[in-house]
Amino acid sequence: MSRNRKVLAVLMRTPMTAATNRNQQLVSDPPFPPTTDASSSALHNFQETNPPPRDAFADVKERMRASIIIPTDKIESVDANLEEFSKGYTSLSQEHRRDLLLVLAKGYDVNRNRVRELVQQYLNLEFPHDSDGNVPDDEQSGDGVRDEAFLASCYRMERNLRIALKPMYGDFFERLNAYPGGLKILAVLRADLLTVMENETMPSLRALESYLKEKLITWLSPAALHLHQITWDDPASLLEKIVVYEAVHPIRSLQDLRRRLSIGRRCFGYFHPAIPGEPLIFIEVALLKAVAKTIQEVLWDDPPFPENEATCALFYSISSTQAGLTGINLGKFLIKRVIELVRRDMPNIMVFATLSPIPGYVQWLLSKLASQLKFAEVETEDTTNSSGVGNSSTFKENLLLIEEEEKICESGKGLTDGKSGIEVLYKLLSSTNSEWSKSDHLISALKPPLIRLCARYLLKEKKRGKALDPVANFHLQNGAIIERINWMADPSEKGIRQSAGIMVNYVYRLEQIEENAQSYFSIGHIGASSDIQRCFEVIR
Amino acid sequence: MSRNRKVLAVLMRTPMTAATNRNQQLVSDPPFPPTTDASSSALHNFQETNPPPRDAFADVKERMRASIIIPTDKIESVDANLEEFSKGYTSLSQEHRRDLLLVLAKGYDVNRNRVRELVQQYLNLEFPHDSDGNVPDDEQSGDGVRDEAFLASCYRMERNLRIALKPMYGDFFERLNAYPGGLKILAVLRADLLTVMENETMPSLRALESYLKEKLITWLSPAALHLHQITWDDPASLLEKIVVYEAVHPIRSLQDLRRRLSIGRRCFGYFHPAIPGEPLIFIEVALLKAVAKTIQEVLWDDPPFPENEATCALFYSISSTQAGLTGINLGKFLIKRVIELVRRDMPNIMVFATLSPIPGYVQWLLSKLASQLKFAEVETEDTTNSSGVGNSSTFKENLLLIEEEEKICESGKGLTDGKSGIEVLYKLLSSTNSEWSKSDHLISALKPPLIRLCARYLLKEKKRGKALDPVANFHLQNGAIIERINWMADPSEKGIRQSAGIMVNYVYRLEQIEENAQSYFSIGHIGASSDIQRCFEVIR
Repeated sequence: MSRNRKVLAVLMRTPMTAATNRNQQLVSDPPFPPTTDASSSALHNFQETNPPPRDAFADVKERMRASIIIPTDKIESVDANLEEFSKGYTSLSQEHRRDLLLVLAKGYDVNRNRVRELVQQYLNLEFPHDSDGNVPDDEQSGDGVRDEAFLASCYRMERNLRIALKPMYGDFFERLNAYPGGLKILAVLRADLLTVMENETMPSLRALESYLKEKLITWLSPAALHLHQITWDDPASLLEKIVVYEAVHPIRSLQDLRRRLSIGRRCFGYFHPAIPGEPLIFIEVALLKAVAKTIQEVLWDDPPFPENEATCALFYSISSTQAGLTGINLGKFLIKRVIELVRRDMPNIMVFATLSPIPGYVQWLLSKLASQLKFAEVETEDTTNSSGVGNSSTFKENLLLIEEEEKICESGKGLTDGKSGIEVLYKLLSSTNSEWSKSDHLISALKPPLIRLCARYLLKEKKRGKALDPVANFHLQNGAIIERINWMADPSEKGIRQSAGIMVNYVYRLEQIEENAQSYFSIGHIGASSDIQRCFEVIR
Repeated sequence: MSRNRKVLAVLMRTPMTAATNRNQQLVSDPPFPPTTDASSSALHNFQETNPPPRDAFADVKERMRASIIIPTDKIESVDANLEEFSKGYTSLSQEHRRDLLLVLAKGYDVNRNRVRELVQQYLNLEFPHDSDGNVPDDEQSGDGVRDEAFLASCYRMERNLRIALKPMYGDFFERLNAYPGGLKILAVLRADLLTVMENETMPSLRALESYLKEKLITWLSPAALHLHQITWDDPASLLEKIVVYEAVHPIRSLQDLRRRLSIGRRCFGYFHPAIPGEPLIFIEVALLKAVAKTIQEVLWDDPPFPENEATCALFYSISSTQAGLTGINLGKFLIKRVIELVRRDMPNIMVFATLSPIPGYVQWLLSKLASQLKFAEVETEDTTNSSGVGNSSTFKENLLLIEEEEKICESGKGLTDGKSGIEVLYKLLSSTNSEWSKSDHLISALKPPLIRLCARYLLKEKKRGKALDPVANFHLQNGAIIERINWMADPSEKGIRQSAGIMVNYVYRLEQIEENAQSYFSIGHIGASSDIQRCFEVIR
């Protein structure tokens, strides 16, 4: 009982509504909330109990400087400066954080004069040339002793150049990484950087962000991550994080949280030793008899059957917790490890699948519909000059079959009118209250074209050779295939808005994971079940 | 009982004698055994059960190549190659490992032609100059828009240069670091490199080693290390490691191991998540009523008093386990963490001290005595031309007081004869059987000068501003001071040979740790108790 009360307190304290408003998704690069809300809740506590002094900004700036430029007799005080910096930074306003990041990006940059000097010296080295004017690679060629001496100078100069090309903030990041709690601060710095860069694209900010991202990738070695099954016995401080960061299906109550960790379900988190007490990413699993077609089949209140009858593990939610780790794919390693673990513990489980949102579908479809509408408009005005219409990537195409056009126009009457099925569909899908999803008539008229176009969106729409939909891209690069498209699987307001209520099952077949991932990576091949392929072929 | 039998089996399997032969010490940069013995015991097992194919070398070389140069359609098979490489490498002979490291160093080096090309481009950038000919640091100066574009080119080129300056083996190391078990392989590679470099000093090998060391330092963040108290309840596979790697006071029996983990003692290990099941470094602690003067006071069989009467925690052994992590100071963080932990659990403990060997003392003293003997020789031959004698750093000095000279000459009679006390002392200390330590007469004659000269060795002898003795340097940089010199503290053969049986107590006073470390770091100040300082002043 007392534990329940404790967790209840946690649930009451956390910003539940904030979590539901965020559009975090099951994606490889999940969009994140600005650091001011959830991830910096600790700093709010700090501000309440310990108001920062008036010149907090100047103080944090000085601590930062002292952590970067260290007189040789002060090496031992670095830790103290890093601690004060960390405390101070997280208590700064968003505006001051931005200013500080600019100071870091511009004031602690690469020393260009030094680089130019070394670069000049490097060119002055007398490179031995072969007949093609290239530098021979092998020490053995030519005069051994002379070559050894030459190579030694090369190595020395290259090392010096490497050091000179490291921006001064590189040292700062390394010191933070070695300092307990520093990795978390690095993630916060990057999250803030990404927020600032939404409005400002100064070259020095971009360089700072890209440098920090590279470092974070090598420091967050998957080999150092620890997989832990999160249960009701875990500390409230950890469970609180699950509530706050759950991005796909918000946790609405204490009972809801408990259910997600109880019989018939599993929750696994990936932890890094330098960020204790919260997972970097976590996955929620439901144990089922078959791959679920709707979210209701997953979010039941009481287990519909004994756990040992389950034959399918359904991943119904993956959430990242650190906005600052955007673009660093940890989910891939997590899924592989979870599959291994579940298979070991429950040999009856033969199928590993997801029930996933399709966050980009409606947005993509609306832009498709809009460009067809433009075509139609121009055609009406001037039928002789239709070649220069729209942007270069669009072309006239029949998005709807003739019978679909008719059925949509007819069903839409009274609610929306338009000159064509395309226009009616556009108006229905872009209306803010999604009236169509409340009319059985419209639902049955829209179902065939929306499913067909969804198959096309998932199977054929790409960006730089990868699936356009971020969740699809995430699972495909991990080696899954697209198994099934499910109509009215998520009839929530959000589900209707982003994917017309459609959800998709991706399936992980263990023996094909590597092969699928490789063929997606190399030639952009998107694996899909024969059902889906058939569904897509109808369109053409 | 069954557990005891299990550990006994472990003890019988491990190469106990190998451990006693190694000269590992309580030092920051401990000298390590070649990887062929303890640290690669796993590979021996591998060889026995799974003999490598005939062309194992070619296979491992190919796996290495395939892990470095990856065609874009094969990214997913990297893990398989890294696994085969790891298995294959550890089963290669020492000779083949050397050959492979040479291939890595020379064949997967920096692409110099690419670097030269970029360096040329960098110089062609039109740098805006200020009146001194320097590049202004601030984007705000001058024409904002032009400067932004210029900076963007700078950042792009600097990033490209940074990438080009990364040797190809840099990618290999990064991939190994991300791969489970890879960090251990990186440590083995470096250990082998250090072994090879004892005989060969090719520039490319040096560059490879220095690059790998830098990477290991940033990847082994102390923030990711985990402190664990090792007890009799730990797995035999872990306890086995303690037996194998104990470097200061070899563990001789099952009973001995158990005693080190039982009442009155503690053992703490520092673990990294990517190298599970064995500590990177571990420390053994005895709980005492006073700082021990001899090793016998520490290595008792039965606890001499109840644990809660202890007021002193004595660090009597620190051992590193990974030869490949030489030069990466983890001991410093370990000691700080252990002090915090012991203080929290046992508030009665007020004193934190060591009983440490002085590994370099006799060796240093013999070289001092030898150069004084040379002086004496030359002086006898030609008293007018004594200025050019010996190497430039030596000068004539009275190492022994007159009364000491006399006493040593007299006591040495029958065993050793010489023209002076210096010569007798030299002969006594350099004789392989250390006869002097078996004669009470000689022991009492040698005690005063050996203690005095030891104080001088510890307090005044330096190399590049740091204490010459590696163990002294280790504790001084961690913030300890030299407390007391103990005569006949370690009368074992090894103890007599390396430090004439003398041991030293370093003391960690919590409130002075930072200050001591800083003053040692900045001006090379060696903190010492007033007793020691007095002892040293007698000499002058």
